[in-house]
Amino acid sequence: MKALRYENSKLALAEIPQPRAAGEALVRVTLSGICNTDVEIVRGYAGFQGTIGHEFVGVVEDAPSSESLLGQRVVGEINAGCGRCALCLAGDSRHCPERTVLGIVGRDGAHAEFLTLPAINLLPVPEEVSDRAAVFAEPLAAAWGITERVRVTKEISVVVIGDGKLGLLCAQALALTGAPALLVGKHPEKLRIAAARGIETETVDSLKARERTFDVAVEASGAESGFALALDLLKPRGVLVLKSTFHGATNINAARIVVDEISVVGSRCGRFAPALELLKENAVDVESLISEEYSLADGVHAMSRATMSGVLKVLLRR
Amino acid sequence: MKALRYENSKLALAEIPQPRAAGEALVRVTLSGICNTDVEIVRGYAGFQGTIGHEFVGVVEDAPSSESLLGQRVVGEINAGCGRCALCLAGDSRHCPERTVLGIVGRDGAHAEFLTLPAINLLPVPEEVSDRAAVFAEPLAAAWGITERVRVTKEISVVVIGDGKLGLLCAQALALTGAPALLVGKHPEKLRIAAARGIETETVDSLKARERTFDVAVEASGAESGFALALDLLKPRGVLVLKSTFHGATNINAARIVVDEISVVGSRCGRFAPALELLKENAVDVESLISEEYSLADGVHAMSRATMSGVLKVLLRR
Repeated sequence: MKALRYENSKLALAEIPQPRAAGEALVRVTLSGICNTDVEIVRGYAGFQGTIGHEFVGVVEDAPSSESLLGQRVVGEINAGCGRCALCLAGDSRHCPERTVLGIVGRDGAHAEFLTLPAINLLPVPEEVSDRAAVFAEPLAAAWGITERVRVTKEISVVVIGDGKLGLLCAQALALTGAPALLVGKHPEKLRIAAARGIETETVDSLKARERTFDVAVEASGAESGFALALDLLKPRGVLVLKSTFHGATNINAARIVVDEISVVGSRCGRFAPALELLKENAVDVESLISEEYSLADGVHAMSRATMSGVLKVLLRR
Repeated sequence: MKALRYENSKLALAEIPQPRAAGEALVRVTLSGICNTDVEIVRGYAGFQGTIGHEFVGVVEDAPSSESLLGQRVVGEINAGCGRCALCLAGDSRHCPERTVLGIVGRDGAHAEFLTLPAINLLPVPEEVSDRAAVFAEPLAAAWGITERVRVTKEISVVVIGDGKLGLLCAQALALTGAPALLVGKHPEKLRIAAARGIETETVDSLKARERTFDVAVEASGAESGFALALDLLKPRGVLVLKSTFHGATNINAARIVVDEISVVGSRCGRFAPALELLKENAVDVESLISEEYSLADGVHAMSRATMSGVLKVLLRR
């Protein structure tokens, strides 16, 4: 089968053997989405080698231990725990120290014709949710996951920094809580997507008057300058949610965190069930976040497109 | 009067006019303590110019608006708020954006013969507490302040990184909650002070087996390596308490914070009342933390001693 692989510091489309279910479920991928994490992996993040990609929708073709899944259209939680440690037994395989992560840690990913995952990781996609929407289940779960880590209500003022696809999803997800949310970015055409959903937007240069006025700031730009801006916008004892994973060290003003008693809260993955529910209710606009769609065969080109300024989600169709 | 001042990038003992109460209380300082923040200020932290020092005990000589304080032996909260903003009105002048801070921000400090502070900042020292103990009220309040920011109970495993005076105070304070606390440092003679109070200690090199086992890590070393070690020792979703204020930017592994969903919680000052209570009950050994005592006239020399490895608290007697 075809697979988009990163090996020996090179990204290439390769022909590899189709995986076998072998205790897991075999999924024929129909559509996958390119995430910034894929781009970071190709820059060396996480030291991963193999098939990249972790946002997908597909159809279960084989599931030895779970026949009810056969033929179902599914999305899948990307962390596969050991199933035996204290964290897994408590239901938190997302933090299992032995976990593999689809297309990120020790497990071939979704930019291929087939993938395998434990049957327990797969969730049927409601009929109302198209493939082009379902492929957002993973990043939307990650955006909604902020509410697992930080209390967000209509009394809490929130600013999201970064108008990329992650920032646009975070702003939309957090606005659903009723919190007055502001999205800050550099690209008027991207900010318009949030504005169309009734979310206040602002460009980076016009924020001076809003310094020290927010309870929660979400850093979704992946840039050091985004971290510094978040600190400027937060009230004392505010919460900075760190959402982007990026490669290398980040310079922060630690004294500022101490003096203003800021909390910096890391947030990675979220639960899929609420994300599917939001997609089913059409509560979040994901269609406007899709910039381009390519065939898997054009995966290398698609990856380079995904790094371009102004390009949001790039999809790979089988 | 004599005052130890940092001006135009130079630390010197100066002769300046004695301050007047003028709406505040006038305190004749009897003993002050040198904090690492004083050392950092002399390295450029906070851009402060003036008399340094913020740990003190003294006697009230003039208090126009609060005669009951006259003649009292006192310690003092170092943040003086504007008294009018929302934070001050809510009782949190520690985060007032217009605040001055004794010997740190816009207000002459404690390494002098006299200082002034609003009467509301001053707390009488219980008879049982000696001057040498009372001078620790401020740093002990800061150590105890961690419990305002993070839940610490006997079910929570805590590691404190750094066996300087701040780390030794934090470890002792947190151990009082019943939490199993480990103090990590490089200096056997300093670790022994904590061990004598029944606190487990470990040197930095022997920690491999304890990675990813702590719920809470307190960074009190002021070094980037301490931050990295704290991340190594924390469980997923653990809490890293950032306690040290230091000058300049810090390189952190932001991806690690996101992937393990760590919370980094800044903690600065704490309330004096519980600290005085702990000193009164002799719950914390501060006497062992005192390395040397000098006359204020020898302040410049004392400051250089305070930067030496192996030297803990240095006091300045009037």
